[in-house]
Amino acid sequence: MSHPAFNQLLEISKNAALFSSMGQLLEWDQETYMPEGAIDYRSLQSEALANFIHKAKTGPKFQKALAKLIDIDTGKILDDSLNPIEKAALREWRKDYIHLKKLPSSFVKMFAKTTSESQHKWALAKKDNNFKAFAPYLEKIVKLSQKKAALLGYEEHPYDALLDLYEPGMKTSYLVPLFAKLKDSLTALLKEITKNSLPNMDFLNKNYEGDKQLEFSKLLLKSMGFESTTSRLDLAVHPFCSGFHPLDTRMTTHINPKNPLPCFFGVIHEGGHGLYNRGLPTEYFGSPICEHISLGIDESQSRWWETLIGHSLPFWQHFYPLLQKEFSENLGNVSIEDFYQAVNIVKPSLIRIYADEVTYNLHIIIRFEIEKALIEGSLKVKDVPGVWNAKMQEYLGITPTGYADGCIQDIHWSMGGFGYFPTYTLGNLYAAQFFETFEKQHPNWREKVAKGDLIFIKEWLNENIHKFGKQFSSEEIAKKVTGRALTQEPYVAYLRKKYEV
Amino acid sequence: MSHPAFNQLLEISKNAALFSSMGQLLEWDQETYMPEGAIDYRSLQSEALANFIHKAKTGPKFQKALAKLIDIDTGKILDDSLNPIEKAALREWRKDYIHLKKLPSSFVKMFAKTTSESQHKWALAKKDNNFKAFAPYLEKIVKLSQKKAALLGYEEHPYDALLDLYEPGMKTSYLVPLFAKLKDSLTALLKEITKNSLPNMDFLNKNYEGDKQLEFSKLLLKSMGFESTTSRLDLAVHPFCSGFHPLDTRMTTHINPKNPLPCFFGVIHEGGHGLYNRGLPTEYFGSPICEHISLGIDESQSRWWETLIGHSLPFWQHFYPLLQKEFSENLGNVSIEDFYQAVNIVKPSLIRIYADEVTYNLHIIIRFEIEKALIEGSLKVKDVPGVWNAKMQEYLGITPTGYADGCIQDIHWSMGGFGYFPTYTLGNLYAAQFFETFEKQHPNWREKVAKGDLIFIKEWLNENIHKFGKQFSSEEIAKKVTGRALTQEPYVAYLRKKYEV
Repeated sequence: MSHPAFNQLLEISKNAALFSSMGQLLEWDQETYMPEGAIDYRSLQSEALANFIHKAKTGPKFQKALAKLIDIDTGKILDDSLNPIEKAALREWRKDYIHLKKLPSSFVKMFAKTTSESQHKWALAKKDNNFKAFAPYLEKIVKLSQKKAALLGYEEHPYDALLDLYEPGMKTSYLVPLFAKLKDSLTALLKEITKNSLPNMDFLNKNYEGDKQLEFSKLLLKSMGFESTTSRLDLAVHPFCSGFHPLDTRMTTHINPKNPLPCFFGVIHEGGHGLYNRGLPTEYFGSPICEHISLGIDESQSRWWETLIGHSLPFWQHFYPLLQKEFSENLGNVSIEDFYQAVNIVKPSLIRIYADEVTYNLHIIIRFEIEKALIEGSLKVKDVPGVWNAKMQEYLGITPTGYADGCIQDIHWSMGGFGYFPTYTLGNLYAAQFFETFEKQHPNWREKVAKGDLIFIKEWLNENIHKFGKQFSSEEIAKKVTGRALTQEPYVAYLRKKYEV
Repeated sequence: MSHPAFNQLLEISKNAALFSSMGQLLEWDQETYMPEGAIDYRSLQSEALANFIHKAKTGPKFQKALAKLIDIDTGKILDDSLNPIEKAALREWRKDYIHLKKLPSSFVKMFAKTTSESQHKWALAKKDNNFKAFAPYLEKIVKLSQKKAALLGYEEHPYDALLDLYEPGMKTSYLVPLFAKLKDSLTALLKEITKNSLPNMDFLNKNYEGDKQLEFSKLLLKSMGFESTTSRLDLAVHPFCSGFHPLDTRMTTHINPKNPLPCFFGVIHEGGHGLYNRGLPTEYFGSPICEHISLGIDESQSRWWETLIGHSLPFWQHFYPLLQKEFSENLGNVSIEDFYQAVNIVKPSLIRIYADEVTYNLHIIIRFEIEKALIEGSLKVKDVPGVWNAKMQEYLGITPTGYADGCIQDIHWSMGGFGYFPTYTLGNLYAAQFFETFEKQHPNWREKVAKGDLIFIKEWLNENIHKFGKQFSSEEIAKKVTGRALTQEPYVAYLRKKYEV
């Protein structure tokens, strides 16, 4: 039997989780089916819900119960009879509580209001390729984010406070050398690869019927272990995954009628997020233990499936003949070798979300360097386009034609998401490092995947990562699974092997 | 400037409305897109939300503000400076408050738990055509409903307390003679009509493509004044309408590939509900003033569109040629006269939801008589099938072949909805009585409708009924619009004229 205060915390937390998942439904609906005219009302709903959840998680009831079990100032656990999982939950509850308490509700409201407006302005600015129209909003958001960092507090660098929101425990001082090494490795690799000739991509720019793309996407999800009774796939402007609950996974994708690849890889990617969510320990649902460790670990799961598996030759050895059958007019004469080469083309490009496995992280590193500089105050908003373009030229050898395919291509900054971008690259690095261990334990994975078996992979992830939920930190899970702290080496080694350079 | 206590009530009420509309989204999603495996979690969400709303509406903050403006015991308004609309809101708030306070939360939980389980058992029992499997649950629900009536209190008849939940102010003593007269008129009418030969229905049982049915349904909604930016139509097992907000109307329909009529009339019906919701005074959104008057008045709006307009000859004079074009193979050789006759066929049948305008209310009267008897204790659950079948034979001249097409065909009782059925018939009667007035003011309505103009009808309803929201009671709105209290006469006169008997 747990301490009664623990059960009280659990009850409040479970109730808050029920409401949080309603918020996810509001968002999912907004992106999929909501009539556009309802947006203002939807914003009011979301705001009311966020206020309620904030209150529940910072209320006196929660605080009192928490203080009985853990010293809120020092983090020292006061009841030693609790088991390790309960102790982990307490640490997370305390962390959330402190974090929420540090941000006054007036600040939270102002931040929400500003970013809501900014997202709208960003969309218009992007459409009009007009950086100046967005710049005043970006300035506001940078200032608010600096304020946020100050409110949250940090030891070394203000950016740490923001990073911690997405990748708990991550420090700028860890990222800077990690990304520097990665950048050097990737730029070197890129030069070697781009010496090779480009594959034939003629099979694109043909007609790929949307319904068929969706059907094939559903087949992919089924092979990954999704059941239609507990998950679904819908259309939205951008692919995303909402895990309302391990038994209700909603994924979305987007159809490009001329090129089915973004749809398939988007679905596999979101499927990776979904499997993580479904693999969390349901018995702790509503407590922090049934949450993901960090955005980086979550991204490691999506990129694992999208890149390490979904871009592998064995994967397409099984699925390509099925795809050929569906689109025989377009693919009938395209060999699997050509298709595989096309899928894995490496070519510097302007848009992050379409970038290949080699250049993708260079896009992220540019964003990281710029946002770190903005937050520490060493870069002004007005200078962002210049710095962006210079870095694009330096790292990737190309320069944006405007702002829409340059520094205002991503929504993240308009949402106030400083500190978010690095988790994309961390995800790639974690995935490759986990995969090294997986490959040792499943040396025959290629043969199994080539036969269409993906379930053993899902099960390996379930057993080694998902089932622990948030019991461990990302550092701890990396060490637990791979025996060492995160480095860029496995990722670079994987790319070198794949591209034979 | 309103009294500060009034603004406080308004704030609490508006916040509760935001959460209530999230509940509507949970339900809509459950019926349209939710993966079935998520049902248990969805139930937890709905329960948590209902608890929260209940607390907000009965909390000390609300009570204190309410008591400043209205005597909670007597209903006397204490601040005479309030305007009539504010006074009307106060009366409704008080009524809701008293009602909620009368039902202890332990009872509410037990009721929700029992009905949730019973709905499941009902669905299985209906599938298996097995009354005995459902009977123990129906017994529990009858007892709980009797308890509910006792808790809510009543002056004359326990059924009044339940009726009042759906049709505020309605009394059993008013319904009994009203329905008796109606039953006599309808059974007489039925005998006269069924002497005539049945129309040719051969155009049914052909293939009516689902997508085309949906497209035509959307055209109908557009003609009624719906815009796709603030409304949508989806598929569900049963047609329904969720008005989350006047700018977010969600309607659903069901496709029968052999017969498009249920889809079209379902959509027109739900559209009627939707227009009412959209016509409510948005400036009072979140207060009771921006709510419907009663289920009966709401049903008058749906039946108005479905029957008085949607089953009229002028309506099809405009829409039938368009429909013929869509389904030329099936309808090319069917004249509008034959189609109109087929649409308006009168023929006693076993299933309420497929009943025609003449027999429909006989189905309701049977349900009313049985549920009144169950609640007052003069009928036992085990005797329901026998009484049901006897009444079907007596009023409609047919006997169910089993239970699934007899006494367990409807979901309502399993949901604990005693008192709900009469509102269907009240809706028909209100609609016909409103229509009498409308017809006097728009003697040329047939010519306009035959040209496809439906907007003037929507506007008449907006002006005469919708825009007042819940400012008046159903009795008051009937008198305001038609100059007299509700009777069955206009309805019977309408049917006599329509069927020329």
